[in-house]
Amino acid sequence: MLAEIKGINEECGVFGIWGHEKAAELTYYGLHSMQHRGQEGAGVVVSDGKNLKAHKEMGLVNDVFKHADFSALSGSVAVGHVRYSTQGGKVLENVQPLLFRSQTESMALAHNGNIMNAYKLRGELEAEGSILQTSSDSEVLAHLIKRSGNKITEETISKALNQVVGAYAYIILKEDKMFVALDPTGIRPLSIGRLGDAYVVASETCAFGQIGATFEREVLPGELITISNDGLSSIRFAMRQQRKMCAMEYVYLSRPDSDVNHVNVHASRKNMGMELAKESPVEADIVVGVPDSSISAAIGYAEESGLPYEMGIIKNRYVGRTFIQPSQELREQGVKMKLSPVRSIIEGKRVIMIDDSIVRGTTSKRIVQMLKQAGAKEVHVRIASPSIQNPCYYGIDMSTRAELIAANHSVPEISNIIGADSVAYLSEAGLEKAVLKDKTIHQGICTACMTGKYPVKEEGEKEIAYTSC
Amino acid sequence: MLAEIKGINEECGVFGIWGHEKAAELTYYGLHSMQHRGQEGAGVVVSDGKNLKAHKEMGLVNDVFKHADFSALSGSVAVGHVRYSTQGGKVLENVQPLLFRSQTESMALAHNGNIMNAYKLRGELEAEGSILQTSSDSEVLAHLIKRSGNKITEETISKALNQVVGAYAYIILKEDKMFVALDPTGIRPLSIGRLGDAYVVASETCAFGQIGATFEREVLPGELITISNDGLSSIRFAMRQQRKMCAMEYVYLSRPDSDVNHVNVHASRKNMGMELAKESPVEADIVVGVPDSSISAAIGYAEESGLPYEMGIIKNRYVGRTFIQPSQELREQGVKMKLSPVRSIIEGKRVIMIDDSIVRGTTSKRIVQMLKQAGAKEVHVRIASPSIQNPCYYGIDMSTRAELIAANHSVPEISNIIGADSVAYLSEAGLEKAVLKDKTIHQGICTACMTGKYPVKEEGEKEIAYTSC
Amino acid sequence: MLAEIKGINEECGVFGIWGHEKAAELTYYGLHSMQHRGQEGAGVVVSDGKNLKAHKEMGLVNDVFKHADFSALSGSVAVGHVRYSTQGGKVLENVQPLLFRSQTESMALAHNGNIMNAYKLRGELEAEGSILQTSSDSEVLAHLIKRSGNKITEETISKALNQVVGAYAYIILKEDKMFVALDPTGIRPLSIGRLGDAYVVASETCAFGQIGATFEREVLPGELITISNDGLSSIRFAMRQQRKMCAMEYVYLSRPDSDVNHVNVHASRKNMGMELAKESPVEADIVVGVPDSSISAAIGYAEESGLPYEMGIIKNRYVGRTFIQPSQELREQGVKMKLSPVRSIIEGKRVIMIDDSIVRGTTSKRIVQMLKQAGAKEVHVRIASPSIQNPCYYGIDMSTRAELIAANHSVPEISNIIGADSVAYLSEAGLEKAVLKDKTIHQGICTACMTGKYPVKEEGEKEIAYTSC
Amino acid sequence: MLAEIKGINEECGVFGIWGHEKAAELTYYGLHSMQHRGQEGAGVVVSDGKNLKAHKEMGLVNDVFKHADFSALSGSVAVGHVRYSTQGGKVLENVQPLLFRSQTESMALAHNGNIMNAYKLRGELEAEGSILQTSSDSEVLAHLIKRSGNKITEETISKALNQVVGAYAYIILKEDKMFVALDPTGIRPLSIGRLGDAYVVASETCAFGQIGATFEREVLPGELITISNDGLSSIRFAMRQQRKMCAMEYVYLSRPDSDVNHVNVHASRKNMGMELAKESPVEADIVVGVPDSSISAAIGYAEESGLPYEMGIIKNRYVGRTFIQPSQELREQGVKMKLSPVRSIIEGKRVIMIDDSIVRGTTSKRIVQMLKQAGAKEVHVRIASPSIQNPCYYGIDMSTRAELIAANHSVPEISNIIGADSVAYLSEAGLEKAVLKDKTIHQGICTACMTGKYPVKEEGEKEIAYTSC
Repeated sequence: MLAEIKGINEECGVFGIWGHEKAAELTYYGLHSMQHRGQEGAGVVVSDGKNLKAHKEMGLVNDVFKHADFSALSGSVAVGHVRYSTQGGKVLENVQPLLFRSQTESMALAHNGNIMNAYKLRGELEAEGSILQTSSDSEVLAHLIKRSGNKITEETISKALNQVVGAYAYIILKEDKMFVALDPTGIRPLSIGRLGDAYVVASETCAFGQIGATFEREVLPGELITISNDGLSSIRFAMRQQRKMCAMEYVYLSRPDSDVNHVNVHASRKNMGMELAKESPVEADIVVGVPDSSISAAIGYAEESGLPYEMGIIKNRYVGRTFIQPSQELREQGVKMKLSPVRSIIEGKRVIMIDDSIVRGTTSKRIVQMLKQAGAKEVHVRIASPSIQNPCYYGIDMSTRAELIAANHSVPEISNIIGADSVAYLSEAGLEKAVLKDKTIHQGICTACMTGKYPVKEEGEKEIAYTSC
Repeated sequence: MLAEIKGINEECGVFGIWGHEKAAELTYYGLHSMQHRGQEGAGVVVSDGKNLKAHKEMGLVNDVFKHADFSALSGSVAVGHVRYSTQGGKVLENVQPLLFRSQTESMALAHNGNIMNAYKLRGELEAEGSILQTSSDSEVLAHLIKRSGNKITEETISKALNQVVGAYAYIILKEDKMFVALDPTGIRPLSIGRLGDAYVVASETCAFGQIGATFEREVLPGELITISNDGLSSIRFAMRQQRKMCAMEYVYLSRPDSDVNHVNVHASRKNMGMELAKESPVEADIVVGVPDSSISAAIGYAEESGLPYEMGIIKNRYVGRTFIQPSQELREQGVKMKLSPVRSIIEGKRVIMIDDSIVRGTTSKRIVQMLKQAGAKEVHVRIASPSIQNPCYYGIDMSTRAELIAANHSVPEISNIIGADSVAYLSEAGLEKAVLKDKTIHQGICTACMTGKYPVKEEGEKEIAYTSC
Repeated sequence: MLAEIKGINEECGVFGIWGHEKAAELTYYGLHSMQHRGQEGAGVVVSDGKNLKAHKEMGLVNDVFKHADFSALSGSVAVGHVRYSTQGGKVLENVQPLLFRSQTESMALAHNGNIMNAYKLRGELEAEGSILQTSSDSEVLAHLIKRSGNKITEETISKALNQVVGAYAYIILKEDKMFVALDPTGIRPLSIGRLGDAYVVASETCAFGQIGATFEREVLPGELITISNDGLSSIRFAMRQQRKMCAMEYVYLSRPDSDVNHVNVHASRKNMGMELAKESPVEADIVVGVPDSSISAAIGYAEESGLPYEMGIIKNRYVGRTFIQPSQELREQGVKMKLSPVRSIIEGKRVIMIDDSIVRGTTSKRIVQMLKQAGAKEVHVRIASPSIQNPCYYGIDMSTRAELIAANHSVPEISNIIGADSVAYLSEAGLEKAVLKDKTIHQGICTACMTGKYPVKEEGEKEIAYTSC
Repeated sequence: MLAEIKGINEECGVFGIWGHEKAAELTYYGLHSMQHRGQEGAGVVVSDGKNLKAHKEMGLVNDVFKHADFSALSGSVAVGHVRYSTQGGKVLENVQPLLFRSQTESMALAHNGNIMNAYKLRGELEAEGSILQTSSDSEVLAHLIKRSGNKITEETISKALNQVVGAYAYIILKEDKMFVALDPTGIRPLSIGRLGDAYVVASETCAFGQIGATFEREVLPGELITISNDGLSSIRFAMRQQRKMCAMEYVYLSRPDSDVNHVNVHASRKNMGMELAKESPVEADIVVGVPDSSISAAIGYAEESGLPYEMGIIKNRYVGRTFIQPSQELREQGVKMKLSPVRSIIEGKRVIMIDDSIVRGTTSKRIVQMLKQAGAKEVHVRIASPSIQNPCYYGIDMSTRAELIAANHSVPEISNIIGADSVAYLSEAGLEKAVLKDKTIHQGICTACMTGKYPVKEEGEKEIAYTSC
């Protein structure tokens, strides 16, 4: 299913590189491979050891960087960011990396996640006379660091990190040092790679593949890494650490070729499809996946069930920002947008339609209807993850509980609403088995949006008034 | 494999609609679904019964039509065109539909194919004082029609069509009539659909699906159809007709959800993969397709062979016109462009890599190398069509014979050049079986580029000096 | 007064250069100096002796040429054109120089003027099977030349010129020759200059000043000049020739620093102001000109009358295409557009307001009102040319007779309509005296729009159906 | 002479309006009339009583506001700004009005002038943990206000203003109040106008004319005005006040139709020309002004001397940002840029060339040479202001002393360098007489750049490290 239709919005991606003379260009390629994590804006801040220079714009990575003058962005260290698109807070000031200059030293900051107590912290800072320049939760950390001694060091950053509550992956750059921090629960992914002698940091490992770098290790929950000309050093800034990787990274958010916490995303999705076939088989003729994110699960389902996988739904590759939306009238007359059914494949068949998740149900309804109009005899919807019933406070911009169809309806009701012949979800156990299958060491995933088990809590978490990333 | 890498360029798409008040908008959606047939430019000419109005631009369909004022493009009849991109002739004048105004009646013309005797005809016209305005072969027909009596009728068009030699699908529009013509060999696809009372004409049936229209019938070889307020009438303008549908439409050019001459393209490709598995099996661990056009064949190969299909190569969806190409230096350091391997899937595996065709071999070499660097133990290349050894004179902009790897090297040599552990092509018989499998009526396909059997000939065919479409 | 307000639109400008290695760039500067003659579009065609290359676009000269790649426009010969802006015919195809390619030789054509029998000629050409590509009258000549023998020579051009009736300045370029032609009445200006060894041709001599060239001579009425590597040669293609230079070139159209038929435009305007002061004096405090075109006349009036010239009306330099027009409501509240009065200069004064002409009267009314609101005690309007009462058939896009205020009202009525305390026009004798003052050789000016004395006639002149230039 | 050639850059313009429902649109028109004060960027912040909304961009006013959605900029209060263009600090962040949001109340700030102790104040703020977001001196005031009690009131603003030293006109907007402040020496112009019930504030009175408003009064030196729904109230925040209006506003910076401190700018310039004619007469044939800013003075000189004023130099209206600069080679061959001489006026004449000032002398040299090449027998340069010999610390971006020709050369030397037959400057007494002529109340002008008499001093004034406005 499609992000823009579904109402799940990705949560930014961060990228950093230390020690390569083409730092800005490699940041472009790294961000490009993480374009799916944010389409609103992108940017890079580069350091030549003495000065920080920024290039940031609204728009897709290609659009942003076609205006970049790489010769002016010289320097062997860079940090980059892609930002997702929501209605509010869609302004250039919020595009990261945020850059703060001063007469003594400057600081750039790139963030993925959500600071749950940002509103409270911000009020305190303003009462003391500080002026904040963005409406993003990410900026609060910079002021906390500055207030902790007007120096940017491991100590002031640790002190500041201990004041923020939430899920976050941070890269902080000053003229001669890069700092990398992950929250104590490790909800958001963040990895370290190597490209020759250079260090690379990225939200997803697909960025390493993109630039020819190799995976080195995951950043650990509660870890603060310092990279400088003296190499890499690390401390743990938090008392307790326990990894709870966001399950949605596997289900939907990450790119299939990324390994999230040592697990390949495509493989985990194929596993989800296989587990789903075991849990909820159904007599049918063909298995069809909703492109792009459900293809892996559909192939897994087909393989496990022995049914043929067919390309029964086509995604139009050229539908993008500039696509002219058909009017209501034309849509009713049958004009398609992003997805089209393939009549000669669907007609007369009993179809198992695999999707990765259902949020509001409106798109599922449309696809089921589309398949039936193309002649499907039956449509059995199989969802390769447990149903989503709760909001996320850790950085995913999901619909509110009132909009979540599974928070308000039983499975048979959902089947009825979307017009399917049957609906089944993968179980929580099935999801864990699919994701953690090959792992010998124990570790957990955060399934709060499915199960309501929130690993991080903050009183007054409703106050979230700022744009998260 | 990817068109822009491979050197096969698509051959334009034509679209026409008669009798719908949103004619121009539906043309936009129709052309949009055929965007893969031409990325250089697009346009529409609309008639309100009295006047023809045009909107044409260089660029993708979305870019072209975002400047269109649909309220000014009123009228219930329209013809549209998407044009492919080559080096020469890349100018606005060549963007179709071509529009010729006169004091008596005007004419718009959209063409897919190639007029083989265009140079000779043009010289004759100029000697008589005519001035041509484009460097495209398509324009010659308009002058031949005008010289045949300064009236645009079934008769003058028939007379003109009998002077041109080649492969072509033409839509011609005047204020109150639309003419649709296909060459006597029917090399290029062209179908008629219905949308309520309206008639629709399109190079590919995916355009019907896009706008909610239904397939009615194929335009026949040597047929000239006239559509007007009196309905549809048809004559055969040529003495001999024999269908030889371009095989490359199945192998590579058409969209998987199109039915070309009654055969679904995805299904034919899956069949090619299955035939290939029967003809050239190999012991291996996984089957991997080169996205996007080889995925169907790869799934067919996997199903037939019983091996798992895996997403071992990822295509970056955001690489487009504005992508900044990495420098030679960065490419050598491992920066990827459109395709990336998935190490955690490939590593340690014996891989069957399915591709639809090989033109020059340079891309195949790069992909094999990429898979090996990602840890593939073996790479067996299986091509889901016979080898391409001859140029096309019917409208596909293929490389010259000197560049075609299969015209100059044996299969073992090719295997060696591209660094594969083995290479095998589908046989001609296998291709015919895959495409014509379900067909009871006899009909042929043009395999000239593979077999050298050219169904249409013209002396001095080397003279092609004009941009074809 | 201002062209865009007034309803007089300039009639294109042509430029040619032979024998300078920076031909395309110099054409840019030449056209730039004639920007006032046409703001709709501009272009250049350059020849390197073997091929013609074109660069044309809609827009101002700067906008058009910022996209030009001068290194690709190599060649020592070029012809350029600026085109005026009207509602109809505002399309790229009409932007000149028109370029016609053929297998034998190519031709570029730049035109200023109006072919009065274009509609008739066009119909004849189409009946013979020719297809014309523009809606401009200028193109007809190219087809007449081609039909006269399919060679572009002095003979075929002469033959073609003898078939067209109207006012015209033509520059025609083929690979190795440039032809320059002026109609037998010489209504439109056209001069020859030298820049080192190079020949330069331009509608206005300000283009010579712009590029550092010197004036050599006027092109004569009915003259056809051929420039090639053998130098310049000339014939007279018409039987009768009699110069009648367009009076509006002096009054309003040409740039003040141009010399039109040996008379400096600023000087002629200052003379008009002086003559006007002699003919129609009035007791007042200050003389104010309507910027920009009436400043010279106002200074002349002030000098002759002994009254002080003051800057009582300011023209906003930044009002251009992108200026956001104030709504009716804001205009009524006093928001100004292009012109503002200067209260501290106007207040309490008796003002003589000098303008070059009145077309519809609406703008004059607005300016008088503006001056009164700024506190002027009296406003005496003095127009530095005779009243315009007739349409122009020679290439100026003037309002129709029904719209011309002076065609329908007496001078006292006009004064009443525009709210002035008095109005006076310069007499025809005064105009001739002002323009021809310093000339010893006899020659005439065309005052048809003022006097109705049309020097060139054509039956059915109402048929003008094509865009003139 | 021309700003961009000369090296004097204008110093921003501010605009405010209180109590008109089209506040944002009127701000556009107001800023448009002050475009000459800043071409780098422009912006507006509007308040609807509850929220501040901003629209700011780099570029000319028209370009900036063509992207503005006025319906989204609803509210009856607005403040606007145009910013000048220098090399450094040319970034969007510096475009004003600066906007600072907080949880309690927001603040917008527009500034014209220069804060001389900005560097020192900034260092103090940063040491206390504040993060500043621009490289502009203007921002310091906002932080000083916030640090003075985290409330935006007459008291906190007064307190902050007493910490800054320099020349400034400030407009500060919060949700429900507008504050207007002028430095104690009143070096920069700032006036109050009325438009119906609405209050208008602007750097130049031409903005009042533009929108139909009427002049009410000057803001007084050291005055802080508060505008709210309770009307207008005023305090004096500074101990000593003494008006020293910048003389360059009359000589060159302001628009001729503005009244600066009750003196019309065109009239003052005409007076300067008259005084100059009295002080430094010379036998000659014609008087020529360098367009645009010297035309008024030239007319004054001509009137006083009895010599004819002639349009001997033409300014090309279409030379702008997109003009393609001629190469050195073409310039040497005579290709002109912004100014062209009119040979038929200049040739054989003794010319008095009037300019408003000379900065580096390079342009004067070029114009004198241009006139001589056009045939001038003699060129006598008369400058309508005293010579510039000192830098400005009050907000005008002038050349450094090393570059100022008059700081390093005597008048005869200057005459020799620029190739004139004679040079004379207006005396300081002449300037004062010309400007203060009609004024009965005593007041002074700042002539520091001419005389070295600096009315405001600050130790360490060399430290200016931030972009002023």
